[in-house]
Amino acid sequence: MMPGSTFGDLFKITTYGESHGGAVGVIVDGVTPGTDIILSEIQTELDRRKPGQSEVTTPRSENDIVEIQSGVFNGKATGTPIMLLVHNKDAQSSAYDDIKDLYRPGHADWSFDKKFGIRDYCGSGRASGRETIGRVAAGAIAKKLLLEKGIKITAYTKEAAGIECKDIDFDEIEKNIVRSGDAQTAKKIINKIIEARDNKNSIGGIVECVISGAPAGLGDPVFDKLDAYLAKAIISIGATKGIEFGKGFEVAKMTGKENNDEMDKNGFLSNNAGGILGGISTGADIVFRTVFKPTSSIALPQKTINKDGEEVICITEGRHDPSIFPRAIPVVEAMAAIVLIDCIKKQAALHE
Amino acid sequence: MMPGSTFGDLFKITTYGESHGGAVGVIVDGVTPGTDIILSEIQTELDRRKPGQSEVTTPRSENDIVEIQSGVFNGKATGTPIMLLVHNKDAQSSAYDDIKDLYRPGHADWSFDKKFGIRDYCGSGRASGRETIGRVAAGAIAKKLLLEKGIKITAYTKEAAGIECKDIDFDEIEKNIVRSGDAQTAKKIINKIIEARDNKNSIGGIVECVISGAPAGLGDPVFDKLDAYLAKAIISIGATKGIEFGKGFEVAKMTGKENNDEMDKNGFLSNNAGGILGGISTGADIVFRTVFKPTSSIALPQKTINKDGEEVICITEGRHDPSIFPRAIPVVEAMAAIVLIDCIKKQAALHE
Amino acid sequence: MMPGSTFGDLFKITTYGESHGGAVGVIVDGVTPGTDIILSEIQTELDRRKPGQSEVTTPRSENDIVEIQSGVFNGKATGTPIMLLVHNKDAQSSAYDDIKDLYRPGHADWSFDKKFGIRDYCGSGRASGRETIGRVAAGAIAKKLLLEKGIKITAYTKEAAGIECKDIDFDEIEKNIVRSGDAQTAKKIINKIIEARDNKNSIGGIVECVISGAPAGLGDPVFDKLDAYLAKAIISIGATKGIEFGKGFEVAKMTGKENNDEMDKNGFLSNNAGGILGGISTGADIVFRTVFKPTSSIALPQKTINKDGEEVICITEGRHDPSIFPRAIPVVEAMAAIVLIDCIKKQAALHE
Amino acid sequence: MMPGSTFGDLFKITTYGESHGGAVGVIVDGVTPGTDIILSEIQTELDRRKPGQSEVTTPRSENDIVEIQSGVFNGKATGTPIMLLVHNKDAQSSAYDDIKDLYRPGHADWSFDKKFGIRDYCGSGRASGRETIGRVAAGAIAKKLLLEKGIKITAYTKEAAGIECKDIDFDEIEKNIVRSGDAQTAKKIINKIIEARDNKNSIGGIVECVISGAPAGLGDPVFDKLDAYLAKAIISIGATKGIEFGKGFEVAKMTGKENNDEMDKNGFLSNNAGGILGGISTGADIVFRTVFKPTSSIALPQKTINKDGEEVICITEGRHDPSIFPRAIPVVEAMAAIVLIDCIKKQAALHE
Repeated sequence: MMPGSTFGDLFKITTYGESHGGAVGVIVDGVTPGTDIILSEIQTELDRRKPGQSEVTTPRSENDIVEIQSGVFNGKATGTPIMLLVHNKDAQSSAYDDIKDLYRPGHADWSFDKKFGIRDYCGSGRASGRETIGRVAAGAIAKKLLLEKGIKITAYTKEAAGIECKDIDFDEIEKNIVRSGDAQTAKKIINKIIEARDNKNSIGGIVECVISGAPAGLGDPVFDKLDAYLAKAIISIGATKGIEFGKGFEVAKMTGKENNDEMDKNGFLSNNAGGILGGISTGADIVFRTVFKPTSSIALPQKTINKDGEEVICITEGRHDPSIFPRAIPVVEAMAAIVLIDCIKKQAALHE
Repeated sequence: MMPGSTFGDLFKITTYGESHGGAVGVIVDGVTPGTDIILSEIQTELDRRKPGQSEVTTPRSENDIVEIQSGVFNGKATGTPIMLLVHNKDAQSSAYDDIKDLYRPGHADWSFDKKFGIRDYCGSGRASGRETIGRVAAGAIAKKLLLEKGIKITAYTKEAAGIECKDIDFDEIEKNIVRSGDAQTAKKIINKIIEARDNKNSIGGIVECVISGAPAGLGDPVFDKLDAYLAKAIISIGATKGIEFGKGFEVAKMTGKENNDEMDKNGFLSNNAGGILGGISTGADIVFRTVFKPTSSIALPQKTINKDGEEVICITEGRHDPSIFPRAIPVVEAMAAIVLIDCIKKQAALHE
Repeated sequence: MMPGSTFGDLFKITTYGESHGGAVGVIVDGVTPGTDIILSEIQTELDRRKPGQSEVTTPRSENDIVEIQSGVFNGKATGTPIMLLVHNKDAQSSAYDDIKDLYRPGHADWSFDKKFGIRDYCGSGRASGRETIGRVAAGAIAKKLLLEKGIKITAYTKEAAGIECKDIDFDEIEKNIVRSGDAQTAKKIINKIIEARDNKNSIGGIVECVISGAPAGLGDPVFDKLDAYLAKAIISIGATKGIEFGKGFEVAKMTGKENNDEMDKNGFLSNNAGGILGGISTGADIVFRTVFKPTSSIALPQKTINKDGEEVICITEGRHDPSIFPRAIPVVEAMAAIVLIDCIKKQAALHE
Repeated sequence: MMPGSTFGDLFKITTYGESHGGAVGVIVDGVTPGTDIILSEIQTELDRRKPGQSEVTTPRSENDIVEIQSGVFNGKATGTPIMLLVHNKDAQSSAYDDIKDLYRPGHADWSFDKKFGIRDYCGSGRASGRETIGRVAAGAIAKKLLLEKGIKITAYTKEAAGIECKDIDFDEIEKNIVRSGDAQTAKKIINKIIEARDNKNSIGGIVECVISGAPAGLGDPVFDKLDAYLAKAIISIGATKGIEFGKGFEVAKMTGKENNDEMDKNGFLSNNAGGILGGISTGADIVFRTVFKPTSSIALPQKTINKDGEEVICITEGRHDPSIFPRAIPVVEAMAAIVLIDCIKKQAALHE
């Protein structure tokens, strides 16, 4: 589908907004009528992605208070589109005068300019991370629908700055500010982020996502395989550079005998496939990893050019996140949730 | 989109067929009217994916001769749907009696059965690799349209069985049967495949794809990013388990300073981004890698269950490819080509 | 959706083919797995639209034998795409030499040439009535699915050449060759058609369609209203020039009091709305009418121009239908059936 | 597409909102980057549909002031989604206590309740005419893009209460409050509307729309014919009961010789086809008519039932429009404009 602001088929979201317009938000269509829509539940998810939530995120403070504009009556979804909106704070576009004519390395400045022939240079325009507010708000509703069906989605920091989190304790994740699966690894990663920030630099990281409780049979053969659909959903999040399922890239070093998941009467004896075979869920946990690049905005000097093609030095001052992955975790969960509920609705339709 | 057999928006393909029906094929809609459609060019691409082409593929011999059923008049595309068809050879479904009641490890048997409640057990039904014939045939047309615009798509074996191909010579690729970028690595990988085959086992591999000549500005912000679209296209190919762009998962170990691609007046000084920033092409080479798991069908004994839930041993005899990636390379190119031509058409529409 | 050969969302059809290629056909995706697919049932519907079936149709004799190429296993739909194909008879394209350079009045010759810049002049190319074979074949499956849910679709000739059929006897329809609702009117219309044919002329007619047994609640508010969806489906049939629901254009002469359908505890007291309110089915019979223009191909001399812009006289010899509506009736039913089953699947998905 | 709030492919709109939520509005995606977006131009179109604009409309006064929330930078479209919003006035839902448990004749109350199992009874919820604000706002942008290409869309009252407007003077239309094509007919229709209002009743009418300046070649064969697409667009407007193109239903009384539009070197000698042949525009004026039923809300007593199935009398007090068509005219133009610009973008893509 295109031109790019709509995602999903039967649970469909359409987002709008850039960081310096009036508002950012989302229209959520296809919400099961009768669903309780509780504003605080949506707000809770938005709080997980909001800036200024901890010392590893940007110190910019935006409260990102969500409002419902339509589709809810007496606290319940009517089945018609739910519009959710977060007003942007007033921001002076003059703050962007320094960068308005140059292309920041690692940013979408260059590619957007080439695409549109016009560039909203304030806060990256539509390439702003604020675009994810709509995803998270819609995802909160999707997660609720899934939870009622016993399906739970959990993402966490798997690796950053070369430090891998090996033993995942799900209860630990939201207790540390990098959302790592164990407290010790969390501390090490936090130190690396602070060190990067102090060096005017940034670091990347790997986020793992586990979907438990999903029934077998989700996804469609050929082009709408569950993993293909998840791949589109996740790679559409800014700053991701890859996705892998189950054993992922490691299968290039394995044999068929090692990689195939055998079964006995209790089910699969391993889950190298990450819960998906032939593009269809198997009933085992769905597991994937995605990688977020280091924040492009750094205060170190970098070579670039300006609109006139002249070589200039770019120093991106400002209060940027020294790493993206901690705040991206609720975005990963949201996109996975939207894919899952959409597939569940499709499976119901197929058998009608 | 759904139910899963249609891909693309403005250059749109719809495939059908399983290995033991009458035919497999594809309807290609949106082909630029006036394009020369040359049957031998399509056949050439199909020959690159056909079984029996070398000692590292299945010895099954299927010639896979393509026919045009519509949409071409006096050798030119009329702009209406082109239907391309390959007849299946007669096959005895009795050959599948051994496996019809059990779920082969690593196959879609289990998940398809759970999804549909009915299972075409002959040659994996719709999960058969023959499904990719339609992709390759349609991709041949897409590649032709791209070539006329100076865009070239080349995929090759990057790594298999732990052996990585480091120096890529594009002229070398089609000269060796594993489509590796250098002759020496090719030999080593071929030996590993033969060894696996002799051990009734199989191996996986990583395919890299380079798209050169693509203009900046392709892809759409937010949900239809070029990399998101490519990710869906590539992960929809059976047996893939991941995709990464540019430096990919390696960025988790890099800093922003290391990862950002600086520019001077001649362009980008590096291409860690793999030619895509903010989901939009930059004009640099678009580079991605995908990983193919080892063939699931192996002749070693494996534990599984049958339809009644009883534990059984599965030995998949037959003439299977000991590795999938050599024949998957034209499929990767085809899917990338379909994405690219679709994005080029969208960019024209945006500016109309 | 586009580029135009795909229709439907969850029950989706993609057609291909023109009258002088190898074959015409359709890929039907989203068929409920386990459905019995009986070739003779599909053939029966195709026989209702085939040429040469009576003295009011073209004397061209084409048997239009349908073949299944995929998606059916042991007589049942697997849930994967069903490809249905009808081979074209060999035809000499030289038969079209007379018209290849001129634009026949009332035909798509001019508009296709302007659109594509290339024109398949044989048998109207993609604008051929043979394009509807795919619709009817897919519709046969849709009708079967609906019948299992107690939904029946019946279309018939309501009016032609100024003669209106007032008392509709559903059992009478298939007993007369114009598919009129009463035998007396049928005779009069048949005479008018024969008279037109003998005068080298043609006539138009109005087809009414009644869908009984459909549950309330089908269709979606705003853009995917059931009547809007039916309107697209029906107006997409060649030669239609309008559609109206319930009282249709007559409501322009009515007051609200006259037009509103009142209710008592047994249901609606009238059905002026044609079974749809606010775009959603009410449970009453869904009733619409569409109008087919007189066949464009007539053997009377007509003014037109050729490719060089020169004025010429066009006489379309050949064996053309002197009226389109008798053979279009199964096409109307097919399109209505596809819309209905798609909406039923969507309603199931909404409440999942 | 579904679930129903999104329309268009390359110029795509997604609307939200009901009459008693916070706001109604639209996300417009695919606007050509660089287009001047002038708020007053959008407001002008909204003023043409707003209530209280004349004595033939509801006396309810709502100013419907439009705001831009995204997608515009320094007065120009950036090519990213433009969100347009109109706040609803505060309204007491208690005003609807009388009707909340009964099904008003001619309204969507019954069908919505059956569809969703939950009913927003305030101001008809999503079935409110306020839903069209988003269409008109988006249409204002579409009309601007078309005008830059020399394409003009004009709709007007063709007939109401049995009074037909025969000589259309385009300059007259916006000078009378029913938007009729001549002043004399306007007066007669106005009198009929006032008479109906005074009788607590309502009347219907026919709106004709003429699109001039559209190039030949728009629309796609088979399912996305221009007339099929327009039919969906127009019938999706609440209260429409039919659409016809060119001579429309009258062709049932014509012969092929009478109906075919002949050509000479200056073009078509007539326009019975309404500017569309084979679903593709011919370059002649595109002409269609649609019919709006009399307003369902009338203050005369009508039989209906309530939620418990009990028979009750419904009297819809309140300030309702005694006829819908005068205010629907800008909605018709808006939908036609969206279809046209979408088709123009598709035609550009086809030939890329």
